[in-house]
Amino acid sequence: MRAALIVFDKMTYLDFVGFYDPLTRLKSMNIIPDFEWRILSNTPRVTDDRGAAGMKMVPDGVLEPLGGYDLLYVPGGHGTRTLQHDREFVEWLRTAAPAKFKVSVCTGALLLGAAGYLNGRRATTHPAALKDLERWCEAVLNERIVDEGNVITGSGVATSLDLGLHVVERLAGADARARVAAQMCYPYRP
Amino acid sequence: MRAALIVFDKMTYLDFVGFYDPLTRLKSMNIIPDFEWRILSNTPRVTDDRGAAGMKMVPDGVLEPLGGYDLLYVPGGHGTRTLQHDREFVEWLRTAAPAKFKVSVCTGALLLGAAGYLNGRRATTHPAALKDLERWCEAVLNERIVDEGNVITGSGVATSLDLGLHVVERLAGADARARVAAQMCYPYRP
Repeated sequence: MRAALIVFDKMTYLDFVGFYDPLTRLKSMNIIPDFEWRILSNTPRVTDDRGAAGMKMVPDGVLEPLGGYDLLYVPGGHGTRTLQHDREFVEWLRTAAPAKFKVSVCTGALLLGAAGYLNGRRATTHPAALKDLERWCEAVLNERIVDEGNVITGSGVATSLDLGLHVVERLAGADARARVAAQMCYPYRP
Repeated sequence: MRAALIVFDKMTYLDFVGFYDPLTRLKSMNIIPDFEWRILSNTPRVTDDRGAAGMKMVPDGVLEPLGGYDLLYVPGGHGTRTLQHDREFVEWLRTAAPAKFKVSVCTGALLLGAAGYLNGRRATTHPAALKDLERWCEAVLNERIVDEGNVITGSGVATSLDLGLHVVERLAGADARARVAAQMCYPYRP
């Protein structure tokens, strides 16, 4: 089981980490011992959406082909507004076509949509971006999580925690979800 | 208003970002226009607590004196177990003594404690570390947030979101908290 976790400039960090934390506990809590992931970007250094004082991170790889993964995760943030029209970035996301699961939170849905992964599907995004998503999918729903089987989209920012736990449950069952949520001290549920 | 946000090797990323996201919205949502922060570490590159595949970040400064800040924030993670006994790190945290607010989540409380900031105070930490905290404070409480006025500690990992919103409310009021929580799509409350 391998996950490709995408990061990019002007990403909202909590979009990413709220999903990353529960998902990577599949490995650190030995629930799926062979679970692996790589944090990948289109640039060698990523700064988030909080301006010059924002967080700076270093991805594991740049524009590496995404063909060998089971799950693609795309967070949101202001950077999505231009990236959805960036041919190189969108073509790169398309290399993840073989991945069984495509997952986004917040405006990451615009990027899944630009790559064609939302064609004929229902999806959601941050409440402020619902209109922007219409061009990329069959129907936009104002819900916390829209699970279309292998394409799963979440609402804004902090939804990333609920979405991460939802995917933990899809991959490893309700008991695993409960164990991960307890270790995270996360008592909430949509 | 200036905040020093501490990061270190083997930190739990969600401990940090769950607080960072609501706090920095004080600036990005123009609630406290002159709000500033720096992300500071004892090392020039930080990797989180998920092993070699974990997130790598670059802090804004290394061992910079912490004397000019109003708020000190310390996240937790496995790294705290050794850092609480690391003289250089603890002495560095002590340079934040003038800061009005000292805030931690999860096992970051062990570091606030090692620096002496929990002396005579009640505090909390991750449920799995309650016993470890006893040496560093007056009384350990198994609660989500313990607010002792200017020293505020939170329980594990995802408590960082509740704690961040709590501090937003302390600094800017209940209306600001509600606006930030809405923008984060975070409907929950302890």
